Amino acid sequence: MLPLVISMGDSAGIGPEIVAKAWTARHAHDLPPFAIVGDPRAIAAVWNGPIVEVADLNGSARVFDSSLPVLVSKSAGAIRPGEPDADGARSALDALETATGLTRSGAARALVTAPVGKAQLYQVGFTHPGQTEFVAERCGVSPDNAVMMLAGPSLRVVPITTHVPLAAVSGLLTAELIVAKARVTARGLTEDFGIAQPRLAFAGLNPHAGENGALGREEIEVIEPAIVQLRAEGIDVVGPVAADTMFHARARERYDAAICCYHDQALVPLKTLHFDEGVNMTLGLPIVRTSPDHGTAFGIAGRNQAHPGAMIAAIRMADAAAANRQRHIAGNA
Amino acid sequence: MLPLVISMGDSAGIGPEIVAKAWTARHAHDLPPFAIVGDPRAIAAVWNGPIVEVADLNGSARVFDSSLPVLVSKSAGAIRPGEPDADGARSALDALETATGLTRSGAARALVTAPVGKAQLYQVGFTHPGQTEFVAERCGVSPDNAVMMLAGPSLRVVPITTHVPLAAVSGLLTAELIVAKARVTARGLTEDFGIAQPRLAFAGLNPHAGENGALGREEIEVIEPAIVQLRAEGIDVVGPVAADTMFHARARERYDAAICCYHDQALVPLKTLHFDEGVNMTLGLPIVRTSPDHGTAFGIAGRNQAHPGAMIAAIRMADAAAANRQRHIAGNA
Repeated sequence: MLPLVISMGDSAGIGPEIVAKAWTARHAHDLPPFAIVGDPRAIAAVWNGPIVEVADLNGSARVFDSSLPVLVSKSAGAIRPGEPDADGARSALDALETATGLTRSGAARALVTAPVGKAQLYQVGFTHPGQTEFVAERCGVSPDNAVMMLAGPSLRVVPITTHVPLAAVSGLLTAELIVAKARVTARGLTEDFGIAQPRLAFAGLNPHAGENGALGREEIEVIEPAIVQLRAEGIDVVGPVAADTMFHARARERYDAAICCYHDQALVPLKTLHFDEGVNMTLGLPIVRTSPDHGTAFGIAGRNQAHPGAMIAAIRMADAAAANRQRHIAGNA
Repeated sequence: MLPLVISMGDSAGIGPEIVAKAWTARHAHDLPPFAIVGDPRAIAAVWNGPIVEVADLNGSARVFDSSLPVLVSKSAGAIRPGEPDADGARSALDALETATGLTRSGAARALVTAPVGKAQLYQVGFTHPGQTEFVAERCGVSPDNAVMMLAGPSLRVVPITTHVPLAAVSGLLTAELIVAKARVTARGLTEDFGIAQPRLAFAGLNPHAGENGALGREEIEVIEPAIVQLRAEGIDVVGPVAADTMFHARARERYDAAICCYHDQALVPLKTLHFDEGVNMTLGLPIVRTSPDHGTAFGIAGRNQAHPGAMIAAIRMADAAAANRQRHIAGNA
């Protein structure tokens, strides 16, 4: 079986530590073989476990049981956990580029990305909003067709708009965008999660989903037409639903993914329930890509305080998605 | 001890049933004496327990142990659970007016309001956005100084703006409004909840609380100046905090109330965690007023399916707040 590949992220963040801790927990969590792409000095600075440098991914699965395989990518400068700098950002970008390319080329089973510092990346010339958009572009997928899904044990959410001011959300919501994102979500649930007939629930934008127009008209003018279109395509959708009634335990049993209008409408319930185990998965790509749903945590880097739970969940979800996707392709062949 | 008074709400909704069920559970939940103001026919239509009509609240505490005391208010028309009409709305309004007046006059220890159908109320000439604003006006308190707090066992939230389109929120948020609402919240936590030095946490409006202006400027231009003002008044406030990081279990331990910019930012986490036990409490009034945080549920009215959990929680919270307020007044005397 091909290994998964993990990009190290910012070498001054908690990426090296949580990947090393995930390797330590490989038997407890039944993790598949993986290799990390990055600077081995960053791992050695925060971890005393066995590292082995590998020249390519072929060798990594063989050594995985006894050592953490590291595919060395370009890096320079001193390693200082908790002190991000331009060298660490360049190193993160090189690891991301290499790991994405390896997965795209078929050398890795799936891609997992550790956290990067966006402010630092922007300073070294990174022009994408985040890793999701970078990976999508390298895969030749347009932004509207690359869908960010956040998932925890009892909830999956998809924000239609993401890192924009709240006041801009209403203007950015279009039926076309909603339909595009929902289509990709439904297909991703089938191909990557093995759900034959996925059930989507749409959150309204306004309080009480607009109360028939009394509290806003986006539900009537934008969301409902999008839902009509999706149903015509055979996609199982309910909504628009009042957002505050969608996320309690009984309500969550009624759908496989909640489609939300904006960042916090999706992220607030997800992180309220699953703060330490959230996974960010990009749907709609020709490769499987996941990421732990947290940042670099520079403030605790190098102190052995980082919790690998979300990284472990990201590895497991990537592995399961790759397996489901292979089954799906085999089933359709 | 004076009884609490409960307005029955819409007689075709679940109000009569949940009040009757709360009375049945009076010993199990150690509930204080209460009387319901409304139409006794609406209770008898959905409940076989003992009802006694009382002429005033003085008599109700004495009979409470053996019967549900009902103070009869004006009503007309047929009683049809699940079928709201103008008669039921007028009856709800009369019960609300009477119960508010009884509490305002000192005849009741606190006011609990059962759910009303707003659409029906508007048809019979109700001009307030909701019961909160009606009660505030009857108490002579301006809307900015009447604060809606939603509370469950592990979270209290205050939305600064409430039933308005999401696109209008940014324009309605002012430092003055935030300061007014936060002041009332802090005072309410002290007087009604017995928290000597309440800790408030402010949610940012935009994703990641605006990321230093990159994702919106309301945090810098409106929320931060409000926080500076509140701190100058000696109020313990943190924020603006990224909303998606505020509501998980560890984060909730750091504050006594979360101040939120809009309806769903407050209600989504509250109802995700406490869907069946949320209480709506109005702070800033000369009287104590609570309400179960759910609607009339016309769809299940009369079927013996309504859960009295939130009504019981509302009665208990009103009772505790009345006791805390008396202690606070005695302590300051």
